[in-house]
Amino acid sequence: MYNTFGNVFRFTSFGESHGKGVGGIIDGCPPGVSIDMEYVRRELGRRRPGQSALTTPRSESDEVEFLSGIYEGRTTGTPIGFIIRNEGQRSHDYDELRAVYRPSHADYAYRQKYGIRDPRGGGRSSARETAGRCVAGAIAKIALGGSRITVRAYTSQVGSIRLEGSYKDFDLGLTETNPVRCPHAATASEMEALIRDVQSQGDTIGGVVSCVIQGAPAGLGEPVFGKLHAALAHAMLSINAAKGFEYGDGFDAAHYRGSEHNDAFFSDNGIIRTRTNYSGGIQGGISNGEDIYFRVAFKAVATIRRAQETVTETGEETLLTAHGRHDPCVLPRAVPIVESMAAMTLLDYLLMQKAK
Amino acid sequence: MYNTFGNVFRFTSFGESHGKGVGGIIDGCPPGVSIDMEYVRRELGRRRPGQSALTTPRSESDEVEFLSGIYEGRTTGTPIGFIIRNEGQRSHDYDELRAVYRPSHADYAYRQKYGIRDPRGGGRSSARETAGRCVAGAIAKIALGGSRITVRAYTSQVGSIRLEGSYKDFDLGLTETNPVRCPHAATASEMEALIRDVQSQGDTIGGVVSCVIQGAPAGLGEPVFGKLHAALAHAMLSINAAKGFEYGDGFDAAHYRGSEHNDAFFSDNGIIRTRTNYSGGIQGGISNGEDIYFRVAFKAVATIRRAQETVTETGEETLLTAHGRHDPCVLPRAVPIVESMAAMTLLDYLLMQKAK
Amino acid sequence: MYNTFGNVFRFTSFGESHGKGVGGIIDGCPPGVSIDMEYVRRELGRRRPGQSALTTPRSESDEVEFLSGIYEGRTTGTPIGFIIRNEGQRSHDYDELRAVYRPSHADYAYRQKYGIRDPRGGGRSSARETAGRCVAGAIAKIALGGSRITVRAYTSQVGSIRLEGSYKDFDLGLTETNPVRCPHAATASEMEALIRDVQSQGDTIGGVVSCVIQGAPAGLGEPVFGKLHAALAHAMLSINAAKGFEYGDGFDAAHYRGSEHNDAFFSDNGIIRTRTNYSGGIQGGISNGEDIYFRVAFKAVATIRRAQETVTETGEETLLTAHGRHDPCVLPRAVPIVESMAAMTLLDYLLMQKAK
Amino acid sequence: MYNTFGNVFRFTSFGESHGKGVGGIIDGCPPGVSIDMEYVRRELGRRRPGQSALTTPRSESDEVEFLSGIYEGRTTGTPIGFIIRNEGQRSHDYDELRAVYRPSHADYAYRQKYGIRDPRGGGRSSARETAGRCVAGAIAKIALGGSRITVRAYTSQVGSIRLEGSYKDFDLGLTETNPVRCPHAATASEMEALIRDVQSQGDTIGGVVSCVIQGAPAGLGEPVFGKLHAALAHAMLSINAAKGFEYGDGFDAAHYRGSEHNDAFFSDNGIIRTRTNYSGGIQGGISNGEDIYFRVAFKAVATIRRAQETVTETGEETLLTAHGRHDPCVLPRAVPIVESMAAMTLLDYLLMQKAK
Repeated sequence: MYNTFGNVFRFTSFGESHGKGVGGIIDGCPPGVSIDMEYVRRELGRRRPGQSALTTPRSESDEVEFLSGIYEGRTTGTPIGFIIRNEGQRSHDYDELRAVYRPSHADYAYRQKYGIRDPRGGGRSSARETAGRCVAGAIAKIALGGSRITVRAYTSQVGSIRLEGSYKDFDLGLTETNPVRCPHAATASEMEALIRDVQSQGDTIGGVVSCVIQGAPAGLGEPVFGKLHAALAHAMLSINAAKGFEYGDGFDAAHYRGSEHNDAFFSDNGIIRTRTNYSGGIQGGISNGEDIYFRVAFKAVATIRRAQETVTETGEETLLTAHGRHDPCVLPRAVPIVESMAAMTLLDYLLMQKAK
Repeated sequence: MYNTFGNVFRFTSFGESHGKGVGGIIDGCPPGVSIDMEYVRRELGRRRPGQSALTTPRSESDEVEFLSGIYEGRTTGTPIGFIIRNEGQRSHDYDELRAVYRPSHADYAYRQKYGIRDPRGGGRSSARETAGRCVAGAIAKIALGGSRITVRAYTSQVGSIRLEGSYKDFDLGLTETNPVRCPHAATASEMEALIRDVQSQGDTIGGVVSCVIQGAPAGLGEPVFGKLHAALAHAMLSINAAKGFEYGDGFDAAHYRGSEHNDAFFSDNGIIRTRTNYSGGIQGGISNGEDIYFRVAFKAVATIRRAQETVTETGEETLLTAHGRHDPCVLPRAVPIVESMAAMTLLDYLLMQKAK
Repeated sequence: MYNTFGNVFRFTSFGESHGKGVGGIIDGCPPGVSIDMEYVRRELGRRRPGQSALTTPRSESDEVEFLSGIYEGRTTGTPIGFIIRNEGQRSHDYDELRAVYRPSHADYAYRQKYGIRDPRGGGRSSARETAGRCVAGAIAKIALGGSRITVRAYTSQVGSIRLEGSYKDFDLGLTETNPVRCPHAATASEMEALIRDVQSQGDTIGGVVSCVIQGAPAGLGEPVFGKLHAALAHAMLSINAAKGFEYGDGFDAAHYRGSEHNDAFFSDNGIIRTRTNYSGGIQGGISNGEDIYFRVAFKAVATIRRAQETVTETGEETLLTAHGRHDPCVLPRAVPIVESMAAMTLLDYLLMQKAK
Repeated sequence: MYNTFGNVFRFTSFGESHGKGVGGIIDGCPPGVSIDMEYVRRELGRRRPGQSALTTPRSESDEVEFLSGIYEGRTTGTPIGFIIRNEGQRSHDYDELRAVYRPSHADYAYRQKYGIRDPRGGGRSSARETAGRCVAGAIAKIALGGSRITVRAYTSQVGSIRLEGSYKDFDLGLTETNPVRCPHAATASEMEALIRDVQSQGDTIGGVVSCVIQGAPAGLGEPVFGKLHAALAHAMLSINAAKGFEYGDGFDAAHYRGSEHNDAFFSDNGIIRTRTNYSGGIQGGISNGEDIYFRVAFKAVATIRRAQETVTETGEETLLTAHGRHDPCVLPRAVPIVESMAAMTLLDYLLMQKAK
């Protein structure tokens, strides 16, 4: 519980926005995995602030230092500790927030929970914490790679601009070619324009990330409470600003009849497959060998450069206008985090399945 | 992991559709809670097959026998074991299914996972298993009652018939007055008509359950991986046929701007509250004292009385027409299960918060 | 935590001495294991009260009913629920104990912990609960058998009568040939005489059980907090009346020098082995392929037929003389329980090692 | 499992002897606890190598850097990450060990488990890892201090020199007045002389640490598998070189009769207490308010400066003579580690008891 994710492959996270740094411990990583450090850095870079005009202008170099568990380039099976030092914090940006609860932020809830809170940049509730997840996710992706399992996410909606169609309709290799991380260039341009417009108004906007996992073998998932999609839902909704999760045809499934929605089995040269995949690759909570795909909804970033009604810690009503450097839209940077959480979940379930 | 749900209040489940019975062990229930056995039976009855013309005609009396943990009507703090015996199974209904994978059922995935499966009525993957959850949920509801926390769900969509509006617009006391469990009589009638129509065609239909938790104190939720809504998502997506979860304004949040979506704080005679509640009562993964509400999408029941293309265990293609007694729509019976899982989650988090 | 034991192979226990029965749920058992029901019954019978003149004369038939998880004689990978109904309880034996704390029993501690307790026969703290462990242990032994791992325990000390020598000095096949479960006939006779003498005086006596695990592969154990011997210690000290645990040369190791105690490695026709085995088959918390052996100390049964000073629930001092039917010595019946806990631990660690 | 200890108060550890450093993450620490950094440093210093002539001459300054979870001197309830950098390693000391399995070390077992190992100084199996435990233990002690619970350990045996008597017979305030950490000056001198003698012969020696916990309320402990003494046993046997654990009268209990061993209750001015305390403050796995005391056996350090028979990784027999800088006796430095593990266990159980 608490700050640990996973059952066999387990990631325990620490760190706040304006403390010494963020990081964590990866436990249960299989031994003997060769770690490509350049790949890990690149993955972490995909989440890095300041990577484009669409993200916060905060400059963070985000260098990860591995502290243990890797010897001569390979994992040893022992815990992999790591840290990403914080830098470039401007705590004075937050001075005025010490005693004020920012609307739709975690400030008030943390205060009620712990009776104390670190007000600098949201402290533990800051998305800064997800940097550690990207490192753990990169390690998981490398380990999954050995099993030929790939995890790819992309921005499929920003505000009301929605990329219609399935992941199959796009070349996901193009996702990284634009700052929005949408594999369809024209839609990406529209999204980008919307984000810039919203940003110019001191506002923020929500959206949706879609993700597909390919190459996963049938048999992953632990009935009844450890259903694979339940674990993915848990993983995705642990990401800051996430508001909803659906897999396969998700909420649309509510509209359909069994005769429309069922996935017929057929024999594909001796391999059992389904003609359609409304199930999203998971049946009864267990993977069936088809592609696993799902969508995650994100709300708009809560910090806006506009006056908002709120109260102070002592209960007095006040107006608050934020001045910090924030993203106008989390979607572009949420893509690698969605992938990281998905990769950790898949690797965890792959290892659990081995313990039979 | 596996068949245990929860951290402090923990429910471990056992049982298959056509074995001796289903049941479980509730561990970590607070001591000294008076258990109203009639209430538990009523709650279990809400999930019972054969309760109306809209559900499967299978007759199950569903008598729960408590085996331990309750002494002179009160919980003792020790594990509460219980069993609900199976009865009225007609295994021969399933004889023809022994070697055939039913489309969009868990048959194939279980076989791939375990290399063996109990083919009678879906075995462990049957919704029969949820009877145990209703017992554990009833116990959780009783324990929550002492803290004045209520959990109420209702059917808000069947196929494309959708109850527009918020839970606040309806008298949830009316939910149990119709077999669909929709608190709005006219919509309930429409839903009922649709289900009967679908049923007459040998087909099935999906829908959505909405749920609201009221009276929960601020401070429940365990950042970062134990966010309260992540736990609720996990809980809901562990229910058979669930396809999606959203809390607060959920997927709609993707459309909104921060300035539209943020919940302003104000002082309500000294109590800090929010003017709107798009957050769904949870901010940063922690309850803020407002109502917690969420929606769960369910697909149509996979078993239909129509010929479907599929394959046998030996890989031969075949046609399958089901003859068993199944629900045309899971929604009415899903309502108490959603409540049960929500109640268990809330009680678990309430107890975790005490361990500070 | 609480009433669940194990990580992958997990046993959750329920039940009290004078409730409906005791039992549990075995989760994570590998699928496809053929269960010899006669073997399970025999193993349970080894723990049964009334099996000899050395044990309590309470008559319990101890029939186990399996409720799930086994189909056509083989495990399916789903949870195995089971119950052993209580019978022959004479609750009136305990009427006088309702308001009195029995010395060195758990009565007072339970009352302080939960604020409520089931006074009949010790309730949850009764050794009756271990019947469930023997069922789970029997299943674990069967599963281990497929890997040629054996677990054998025996009584090595009763009071001051101690069987000198190592497990290698005895034919452990003789353990079941006498009611004390000591593999050395002459010592067994002495132990038996001592127990009868103690019993005739209305008293009880403690002792030691020794156990050896053979055939375990090298590599089992999870550093640093999941060391194999730490898990075994936890398992053994969870047994009622256990007071101490040591493995290898245990407390004797305190006396030795490194030069005396180290186990030299040598090559046994290409297989690396150790010349001595003071390590008890575990080095750095991980099995090294040698025999794993350990000892568990048990105190005398707390219930004696003699007047003892104590207090009532309301704090008044009183004298108490027990009249119930109790064992004069737990050792003979502790042997199968030690084996059961050891077997569950080993199987759990064997499965964890597969998840690499 | 694996590298995490505890249920509510959880410590996850990382680090190897010759990597970047050791450290960990403390999760579940109560918020608002004032951390005296000087105290933490002192506690860590008690474990530090080179503190006296009786320990390894390796020089380690052991500076702990806290990375998160503490704000303005107080815990915030969020994870406390920390690191102690390694320094002064002389990896060349270990060059010759790369391909050789040191007798009674973990080298061979790790290799069998993971198929790979970090040979420098034992890697993860080095006692260097316990530095992190001392930091977590110091935090736990501070938190326990608020509940007036104290944990004190001392060396009670070195080789065959044994301090006779109970913890009550000594002034434990004297424990830190000599390098052996024995509260009885004359015995301490004898122990010290023995250790020096053994050291001069290039050898090592084992011993016993005794520990007493005072001030713990009645009611701590989680039946049946979470018995308080079972958790303590697990904790103690997770310490390097530990071979046995006993609480109360432990293995001696085997000799006694119930009439001798039972602890009579009496009313001490309205407070229920026991006249004797053979139970060691724990009955039925739950604390009863009396002092909790136990003993832990340690073997001699495996590294000796004498030629020993062993084999190489490739299976060839060879002779090995160690040249590294090692302790002749772990006991003096084991004392603070025993205290740390005991403090973490107690705090964990105290917090669990709150979740009722």
